[in-house]
Amino acid sequence: MPKIDITALPSESGSGYPAPYDAGFEKRHVTRLGKAAGLTQFGANLVRLEPGAMASQRHWHENQDEFLMVTKGTCTLVEDEGSTTLSPGDCAAFPAGNPNGHHLVNNSREDAEFLVIGTHSSTETGHYSDVDMMVRVTDGEYNFTRRDGSPIRGEGGQ
Amino acid sequence: MPKIDITALPSESGSGYPAPYDAGFEKRHVTRLGKAAGLTQFGANLVRLEPGAMASQRHWHENQDEFLMVTKGTCTLVEDEGSTTLSPGDCAAFPAGNPNGHHLVNNSREDAEFLVIGTHSSTETGHYSDVDMMVRVTDGEYNFTRRDGSPIRGEGGQ
Repeated sequence: MPKIDITALPSESGSGYPAPYDAGFEKRHVTRLGKAAGLTQFGANLVRLEPGAMASQRHWHENQDEFLMVTKGTCTLVEDEGSTTLSPGDCAAFPAGNPNGHHLVNNSREDAEFLVIGTHSSTETGHYSDVDMMVRVTDGEYNFTRRDGSPIRGEGGQ
Repeated sequence: MPKIDITALPSESGSGYPAPYDAGFEKRHVTRLGKAAGLTQFGANLVRLEPGAMASQRHWHENQDEFLMVTKGTCTLVEDEGSTTLSPGDCAAFPAGNPNGHHLVNNSREDAEFLVIGTHSSTETGHYSDVDMMVRVTDGEYNFTRRDGSPIRGEGGQ
């Protein structure tokens, strides 16, 4: 049955970012619709943000197109040019390789929700605009480092 | 500006299907959101169906994943197993290579609308479940034939 039974799917909270950049993501809830339905070429995730939550660290992708549509509540899109309020039905897109870091934040007092689509690729490099972090992804393995490639938690305990 | 100004985008009606399979598609209106925003890896189209319209001939893709979410009104998803009513927020997905032909039809008395995502690929073969047609796509060129590869409008005038 191609219709997806969304209410039957698990919702994931938390983040795979290394500390301290994983703080606050317990208020972000991700339901992986495309994965549940057997899609492999792109991700299709429904993301619920509690008030005050962000959907991700502000970032951009070298290799992967990204598209989103707000489905409930109000989200704030933050990117290099500033902030834009997005309401249900509003869409935004981020072509691969455009270094305009972006993320959604819920600055409202109600839950907000959006659908996000992102290409799957065997390798990817992601850059973060507001924190000293980058990620290289190879076959699903995420390797987070500082922008200069050094470990985020160095041997010196920094 | 990553936010997409949907109201400023053109809406396309009609179909590239050969006659007689193009009939009725003047009631289908497609807005190409992803293309307008510079995405190349997948399509992200908003499709409005007038009452009685179908979104496509019932079909499946050999190479391209497909995902949709109903955004307004009520659509009927028709596939091999039967019909399912989809309301706003309902989603369906169709993994590449699954030969379960599907399409959306608007059997209601009001306009309906959905967002559909489909992978872009350099080559593709599509199969149609209810009519004697198939399509081979190479670099954006669509070649529609009967299932046996013969022209849909043969030299004999058939």
